[in-house]
Amino acid sequence: MYPFREGSFAVRNAWYVAAFARDVGRALVSRIILNQPVVLYRKEDGVAVAVGGRCPHRHFPLGASCLRGDTIVCGYHGIAFGADGACVDIPAQAHVPRSYRIPTYPLVEHGMWLWIWMGDAAANPALLPDLDDIGFTTPGLYPEPLFTHEVACRYQLLNDNLLDLSHLAFLHSSSIGTIENARTPETVTQEPRVLRSRRYIRDCEPTPAMARRGVTGLVDQVVGMDFHLPGLHAGIGDHFVATGDAESWGEPLARSRPFHAITPSTPTSTYYFFGIATMDPDHAERSAKFLAPVIDEDIFASVEIEKMIALVGGNPPELMIKSDHNAVLGRRMLQAMMDAEAREAATA
Amino acid sequence: MYPFREGSFAVRNAWYVAAFARDVGRALVSRIILNQPVVLYRKEDGVAVAVGGRCPHRHFPLGASCLRGDTIVCGYHGIAFGADGACVDIPAQAHVPRSYRIPTYPLVEHGMWLWIWMGDAAANPALLPDLDDIGFTTPGLYPEPLFTHEVACRYQLLNDNLLDLSHLAFLHSSSIGTIENARTPETVTQEPRVLRSRRYIRDCEPTPAMARRGVTGLVDQVVGMDFHLPGLHAGIGDHFVATGDAESWGEPLARSRPFHAITPSTPTSTYYFFGIATMDPDHAERSAKFLAPVIDEDIFASVEIEKMIALVGGNPPELMIKSDHNAVLGRRMLQAMMDAEAREAATA
Amino acid sequence: MYPFREGSFAVRNAWYVAAFARDVGRALVSRIILNQPVVLYRKEDGVAVAVGGRCPHRHFPLGASCLRGDTIVCGYHGIAFGADGACVDIPAQAHVPRSYRIPTYPLVEHGMWLWIWMGDAAANPALLPDLDDIGFTTPGLYPEPLFTHEVACRYQLLNDNLLDLSHLAFLHSSSIGTIENARTPETVTQEPRVLRSRRYIRDCEPTPAMARRGVTGLVDQVVGMDFHLPGLHAGIGDHFVATGDAESWGEPLARSRPFHAITPSTPTSTYYFFGIATMDPDHAERSAKFLAPVIDEDIFASVEIEKMIALVGGNPPELMIKSDHNAVLGRRMLQAMMDAEAREAATA
Repeated sequence: MYPFREGSFAVRNAWYVAAFARDVGRALVSRIILNQPVVLYRKEDGVAVAVGGRCPHRHFPLGASCLRGDTIVCGYHGIAFGADGACVDIPAQAHVPRSYRIPTYPLVEHGMWLWIWMGDAAANPALLPDLDDIGFTTPGLYPEPLFTHEVACRYQLLNDNLLDLSHLAFLHSSSIGTIENARTPETVTQEPRVLRSRRYIRDCEPTPAMARRGVTGLVDQVVGMDFHLPGLHAGIGDHFVATGDAESWGEPLARSRPFHAITPSTPTSTYYFFGIATMDPDHAERSAKFLAPVIDEDIFASVEIEKMIALVGGNPPELMIKSDHNAVLGRRMLQAMMDAEAREAATA
Repeated sequence: MYPFREGSFAVRNAWYVAAFARDVGRALVSRIILNQPVVLYRKEDGVAVAVGGRCPHRHFPLGASCLRGDTIVCGYHGIAFGADGACVDIPAQAHVPRSYRIPTYPLVEHGMWLWIWMGDAAANPALLPDLDDIGFTTPGLYPEPLFTHEVACRYQLLNDNLLDLSHLAFLHSSSIGTIENARTPETVTQEPRVLRSRRYIRDCEPTPAMARRGVTGLVDQVVGMDFHLPGLHAGIGDHFVATGDAESWGEPLARSRPFHAITPSTPTSTYYFFGIATMDPDHAERSAKFLAPVIDEDIFASVEIEKMIALVGGNPPELMIKSDHNAVLGRRMLQAMMDAEAREAATA
Repeated sequence: MYPFREGSFAVRNAWYVAAFARDVGRALVSRIILNQPVVLYRKEDGVAVAVGGRCPHRHFPLGASCLRGDTIVCGYHGIAFGADGACVDIPAQAHVPRSYRIPTYPLVEHGMWLWIWMGDAAANPALLPDLDDIGFTTPGLYPEPLFTHEVACRYQLLNDNLLDLSHLAFLHSSSIGTIENARTPETVTQEPRVLRSRRYIRDCEPTPAMARRGVTGLVDQVVGMDFHLPGLHAGIGDHFVATGDAESWGEPLARSRPFHAITPSTPTSTYYFFGIATMDPDHAERSAKFLAPVIDEDIFASVEIEKMIALVGGNPPELMIKSDHNAVLGRRMLQAMMDAEAREAATA
């Protein structure tokens, strides 16, 4: 489906964020990931697990059920499943067949996220984004999970948004963007499963948000995004005193590492997990207040585009521009990963 | 459609409840039954009738029209139809063609219900459930109509619910169920167009609802459901003092006959008419208060399952268990009735 | 689609009302017309224009963007388009390719409306309804735009409504109709692209609305509608003192020219622009209050019929009556125009 080849939905053999780690405890959490129902919870030993969300008896949503120790007891007829997916109790009969089970999905707590592997291939921990590489462990920066949204659009619209930060200059012109976000050329580097983009902006006006914080002089900026395919965009947003100010030159005004995890739900809906690391150890509430309208702008744009695609139908033609280079690379890398999976599936 | 053969929707040559008798008077009542628009009303002589709900002129809903004596006057252009379906007035012309008519459907007041026959075969009054057999006339029990719901699920999910009362132990564990509803073996007897199931539960803890009413000792229970195919489930829920109490042994603590009428509306929506007979002649308000959340649990489960089927698509595989015996029989009997109708239609 | 031949949606090479002229200014107005996204606005010189509503870069709705002088600056990545559709700025690159453009649509201010031409053929100003002919310039009558509705039905249901005013006798029996609207024979005259119908009603009871205004004697009425195909119904509603009152005979009690512009949006939604001219120069507020429930009755009927068509599916059979003569002619004229366009498209 747009913007991919007909029949290509999403990469399957990969880690996607299923939830922020702090949001999963002893209450069952329901998700639809890659069009499959999933339930998340923590066992009594604190380990988070993911199992299929559909009772194989009558399709009752297991997420609407409850826990008895580490087993999910289906809320309809009481059939119980362990965290390993095996049925451990069928109240209406003594014998529990070995074949009676629900799927389980590898789930790994890594950084501030729970990562799920939905594919048929063996889960590969080496494919988890490196926490140092994504800036999660940057000294002096404090990461906080902020928002979990279910967005009514196909996931690639959110990826497209993050793969082309020239949009900061317009969609976010009242907060985090200036015209330089569009005008400054971008550096793009492509690695296996990682696509990095950077803009080095010199001697520019402060962003509206910085100006509201009292910054008046010119600023140097580093703005970038590393797409760790297929599901995480790790950003960089650093502001320094520009060379014009001899005394404070290079002094950091603000540094941040925004983390955007984009997880396909249904063909036209997506989970968007947003968090950010800043220099303030206690910034969660302030960041949430400041960034909620910014992320809402991205969601607005993506949902409106989904509606537009529904209206015009099919695969609407696009007129590409130079700044699409990064987005086009990102789409091609995703398409190549999906094609490789399709070839493997055809061989098997 | 699930859980039936592709192309099988519902039995047509049969009586379904269209409304509680008390709910149909001189105001037009709109229904969609077996995917057909229907209007119900009482004539001036008090007899309830059912006619097609679409004006054949411009498809205006006749249920949004009004009555003039016993004729429906279409609210759009005033074309009027008698209770026999014949057009009696076309305001814009003197001549009314004989062919100008709307369908009529046999409608019978029987028990506290109005029963409609939507099929092409001749309506057969012998197929109406026998009021003695369903417990409607049980001496000392007073039937009351309680709820009319339009439920956003295919009808068989509500049938499945009623054909497997082991769910009382879990879905209704805070009110009318105990674990014995799942553990106790079930007796099933199959007759032409009737499927009966019973659980005789001895020396069990009172249900949470009974306990809240002050019952402390052990209880004997008879819990059952008679499915009068295709549209009525007549239940039995009797509680007696158990043998442990020599003095009061066998004394009835509570007796009830719940009546669940399940009528297919569209392929993914269903009317659910619920009433109950209890030992209290004046129980309507109390029963409604007590049973509203119980029925809502059944509706919740059924609607959630409908959503799950929509998500996973098609005919999701099911892992059957022993207590499905009754539900499987009920489904097979319905499928056999639909197959027989399809064969007759093919012959004709 | 119903009631037209399969594959026929709407006439394209024609003028449709896109908005009341007063409702388009310097704020962008989004419309979906003939299933295409459109944006309307006035240039700094006051001239209203219409351009495509989808940014060809990433499909962002241009109607959710903003104006810079006469250019629309896309709210997502800042790509800017002039009123002539040509791209004038791509912030992220110096070069703007000539091929980078959005569609433009001829838009003409005429009467109190803005008329749009969505078809591929050259826009033909001669096809705009003549303002004298439609009664817009009638001396002593003052036209006012009143309502803009998006109605959840296919456009022909609103046309059908206006092509058969016998419905006044029933749908509007509490306000502007009497039984004579259905009983009185209609005069129909067919011209190229215009279909006129009139009812001359003599010595009739005043309408309920007239009666509420204190009119007690008998009334003569002229009630009619001129369908200027495919998108405007210009009505006439004149009430005079009837012959019975020798003294005041023929004195106008009320004269009005209602204007109903019906513009196809999506296959199952339609814009309905309603305005009216009356004898009172300052009637806007009073007319809006009086006519809002009347127009709502028409919308109710049309939306209910759309639901009924969705329920019964496909092309439901209709039983025609004599008073359908005008509606049938209107449908045939529209079908003929669509057929002619299809032939031309096949030839080209």
